Amino acid sequence: MDIRACLFDVFGTVVDWRTSVSRDLAAFAKQKGIAGIDWTEFAVEWRKLYQPSMDEVRSGRRAFTILDVLHRESLDNLISRYRIKGLSETDIEHINRVWHRLDPWPDAVPGLTRLKSKFIIAPCSNGNIALMVNMAKRAGLPWDCILGAETARAYKPMPEAYLNSCRQLGLAPASVMMVAAHNHDLKAAKAQGLNTAFVPRPKEHGPGQTTDLAPDLACVDLPAADFVDLAAKLGC
Amino acid sequence: MDIRACLFDVFGTVVDWRTSVSRDLAAFAKQKGIAGIDWTEFAVEWRKLYQPSMDEVRSGRRAFTILDVLHRESLDNLISRYRIKGLSETDIEHINRVWHRLDPWPDAVPGLTRLKSKFIIAPCSNGNIALMVNMAKRAGLPWDCILGAETARAYKPMPEAYLNSCRQLGLAPASVMMVAAHNHDLKAAKAQGLNTAFVPRPKEHGPGQTTDLAPDLACVDLPAADFVDLAAKLGC
Repeated sequence: MDIRACLFDVFGTVVDWRTSVSRDLAAFAKQKGIAGIDWTEFAVEWRKLYQPSMDEVRSGRRAFTILDVLHRESLDNLISRYRIKGLSETDIEHINRVWHRLDPWPDAVPGLTRLKSKFIIAPCSNGNIALMVNMAKRAGLPWDCILGAETARAYKPMPEAYLNSCRQLGLAPASVMMVAAHNHDLKAAKAQGLNTAFVPRPKEHGPGQTTDLAPDLACVDLPAADFVDLAAKLGC
Repeated sequence: MDIRACLFDVFGTVVDWRTSVSRDLAAFAKQKGIAGIDWTEFAVEWRKLYQPSMDEVRSGRRAFTILDVLHRESLDNLISRYRIKGLSETDIEHINRVWHRLDPWPDAVPGLTRLKSKFIIAPCSNGNIALMVNMAKRAGLPWDCILGAETARAYKPMPEAYLNSCRQLGLAPASVMMVAAHNHDLKAAKAQGLNTAFVPRPKEHGPGQTTDLAPDLACVDLPAADFVDLAAKLGC
């Protein structure tokens, strides 16, 4: 393998969205005097609307629309479903941008910093550029550039999301490694000729997680324990 | 002014293309036994083909084509004009990628590092993403992300090159500052509502430079002596 760049899934792989969203919104709700909502459940319900909202774009029924807009539409539905009252437009936008304020898993920044010394590192996420940049500034994620859905105008696992990210780096897929905690993402990347590394995130979905606890060796080239282990295995 | 991001012209503003190209190619020519060429003149002639090559795209006569490809076409013309013989395809690609190996002006990295502590910093260049990423890795330019022509699919000074870069950051033009050593670039940015800062690079074109020695105050909001002075003036 002659790897020149590592691309990363972000939600779940680099950052802990479930804990971050619920903690942030619980604090905001307290400040606003909103009681009686289980914010972990709210975060999970919001995330459940994520794939269906992108399916509209993947199917071609809807023109490419950035994730901030899809998140906002899902949020508006949830605010109505949970009967949350008294939020201003500014409040709702602040809540929507909680996805810009996610905390990394503890090994993410040290691992990425080591990987950056040898490889180009970039997200290949379904998050839009502003979301990825704001998250990186806050969390200290040392990306070389931001690639993924918005620059490809295609949502993973569509082939173009991976292929366009490679093309924008001027690299063949065989010179790129996709890193994710989700086997389905790596299966799609592998099908386009990228190398693949799996890092387990067994608490992404909370204590009872049953999915993606182990790499699917049919599509994973390199299993690693975490980002620091990945850096070591790649000689950084 | 409520500035959230600073966008930078790169060729001439961040890096010294003339000295870098001529020095790099002179060393390569010596190694290859190619004699009798003034590599500073060669660099200048190559750069003269830059605007005409982009004009084909700006006019709509040609679909958007990344700068690496335009550079290569210009280089092929020059190799023929200078009657340089004996270069392999690998050699020619190595020469073409000299634009990925440009050295920054001495104040660029310290200034950008300070600016990054307060603002999103990104190139808004006509260079393609791979070119900008490879240059940044080599030169230590600490960009938060790579914006500009390739993500906009429009070459400056087309309005879309500036507007799309702002949009991808989720920012209004009024929250963005364009930084350049070229008044024409700042005039175009200002026309789209961006704030503007001018940094003189009086040696970009060599000792006899007559253009862009001073800011055009009709389109420049903030004149600065260099990137470190700009950081100080913006409170970093």
